[in-house]
Amino acid sequence: MRPGSSSRGNAALDAEARAVIAGQRRALARAITLIESDHPDDRLRAEALLERLAPHAGGAIRIGISGPPGVGKSSFIEAFGLHLTGRGHRLAVLAVDPTSPRSGGSILGDKTRMEELAKDERAFIRPSPSRGALGGVARRTREAMLACEAAGFDVILVETVGVGQSEIAVADMVDMFLLLLAPGGGDELQGIKRGIVEIADAIVVTKGDGDLAKPAARIAADYRAALHLLRPRTASWTVPVLTCSALEGKGIDAVWTTVEKYRAALTKAGLLASRRAEQAHSWLASELREGLVEQFRNRPGIAALLAQAEADVRDGKLLPSVAVRALLDAIAAKPKKR
Amino acid sequence: MRPGSSSRGNAALDAEARAVIAGQRRALARAITLIESDHPDDRLRAEALLERLAPHAGGAIRIGISGPPGVGKSSFIEAFGLHLTGRGHRLAVLAVDPTSPRSGGSILGDKTRMEELAKDERAFIRPSPSRGALGGVARRTREAMLACEAAGFDVILVETVGVGQSEIAVADMVDMFLLLLAPGGGDELQGIKRGIVEIADAIVVTKGDGDLAKPAARIAADYRAALHLLRPRTASWTVPVLTCSALEGKGIDAVWTTVEKYRAALTKAGLLASRRAEQAHSWLASELREGLVEQFRNRPGIAALLAQAEADVRDGKLLPSVAVRALLDAIAAKPKKR
Repeated sequence: MRPGSSSRGNAALDAEARAVIAGQRRALARAITLIESDHPDDRLRAEALLERLAPHAGGAIRIGISGPPGVGKSSFIEAFGLHLTGRGHRLAVLAVDPTSPRSGGSILGDKTRMEELAKDERAFIRPSPSRGALGGVARRTREAMLACEAAGFDVILVETVGVGQSEIAVADMVDMFLLLLAPGGGDELQGIKRGIVEIADAIVVTKGDGDLAKPAARIAADYRAALHLLRPRTASWTVPVLTCSALEGKGIDAVWTTVEKYRAALTKAGLLASRRAEQAHSWLASELREGLVEQFRNRPGIAALLAQAEADVRDGKLLPSVAVRALLDAIAAKPKKR
Repeated sequence: MRPGSSSRGNAALDAEARAVIAGQRRALARAITLIESDHPDDRLRAEALLERLAPHAGGAIRIGISGPPGVGKSSFIEAFGLHLTGRGHRLAVLAVDPTSPRSGGSILGDKTRMEELAKDERAFIRPSPSRGALGGVARRTREAMLACEAAGFDVILVETVGVGQSEIAVADMVDMFLLLLAPGGGDELQGIKRGIVEIADAIVVTKGDGDLAKPAARIAADYRAALHLLRPRTASWTVPVLTCSALEGKGIDAVWTTVEKYRAALTKAGLLASRRAEQAHSWLASELREGLVEQFRNRPGIAALLAQAEADVRDGKLLPSVAVRALLDAIAAKPKKR
């Protein structure tokens, strides 16, 4: 039976989808909760709901934001968000925060960091689900983004905590990637991972006010110089380095102007659509990987084989690659019973 | 047919394995080249060779080393390595450097960075293969580590470039993880990812000489204070913060003493063996994931279905999760023909 194919399930999902598309915030929040659920029934319902929402999605500009801890990300997002809502935009803020293998909890995701924006009717802030592997978190965020778009939000910010791999996951789901940097002790060029600077479509130096105004301008100049050494991510786009002050509200408008310029340049070159197509492709690949592992684990008889292989590998009697070759040969020989 | 099961193949592999186990450097280099090869025949031979080497592996202390760019990793490894070989140890240095999705090349892996150590008969430095996804690089490094151990190296250093996810991959293959930090502008506590400090078993502040001696001592004190706030990774081990100077050779011996203390403490608690068992388990899981995807792609008829799904997803007609559900249902219904 197809997900949600009973007429009652269908009607309920239709109503829920209509409520999201009408822009009802509670319906959107419920939809994202459903998307984030790990329960198999919820997953089927989430997919059925998303299929109804997808034709209404895709209209927003999707912006990834990252930067090292202490850069003032929340202050920037609050100032930037209020600037946008003041201009009539509707803004959704999502967070990607894969649980570190040790900390077991979210660093971000605290709505209270952005007090004014959280109260704004035109803004929707969704704390991070803060659990699970990066793959699962990325899927939930992509789907939550579709739901926000279907609900009429035209700017989506996806914030990440600044651990290398999560930036790459976020860059792979947005149109534009903003890297925030703070003026500091002069070691900034060293402190930021080369790979992260390379995926940035624009760099914004924060805290450009008071005593830090001069250091901020200097850092911006350093980065402008350094960026000349890097191959641009997008041929038709030169990565700009801006400075701003969330405190004084300076330079925030220029960040938005840059976003608009970027969108216009990429749209003209046909790159916005082709990038989204590539992203959909890599999303499919990651869903496939996770789905195959799940299907494998559910095969009859595989649990015992896998347990034996795990024990032998743990005891050093068997090399993992050799164990996997044997497991795959076993399932190829014995087709799954239905 | 089992890998290398022809008598001629067997004899050649036996000879090659003997040469590695005898500690012949060229044979070890050839073995690692075989391990790094992407060719399917080479893979079978690599596995067959590794099965012969594995019973001789496991005897080394495996140490991961990371730190931000500019921390002086190469200078530290050279000084630390020469200290060890001077004490009669045999040291292998491997590098994990997953190609960033954009740079397409290795940042590290330059032997000439460690001139003296590279000339040392008791040291073996292997530049990073510098290509492929993190998963593949991690597998090759784990297997190269086994080969080095079989060749009699009793200290293995696995160096990584300092992009968040690769540190976690390295921590998952070593006994002990050293984080190097440099004295700097005072923002160090911010610049290092929280998750990375959390996986460190010891922190070493470099460049503790001349003008930087005082800042280095201060940073070390700051980290000692900060570490009190973190749950220790290992219950029976308090993470020490050391300072050293590769230039003046100061504090290098204390790093090795710390490694020995760590090994003794963990061995006593039975944790060294249990950690290795857990690592073998997670290695198996990652091999399984990659093997399943490869097997799926090789199924007859799947290429056309996958191409159609990819096109529909790219055009926005189909949600990736829905596409994957359909693909998995298709292979469950039609068992693979042999």
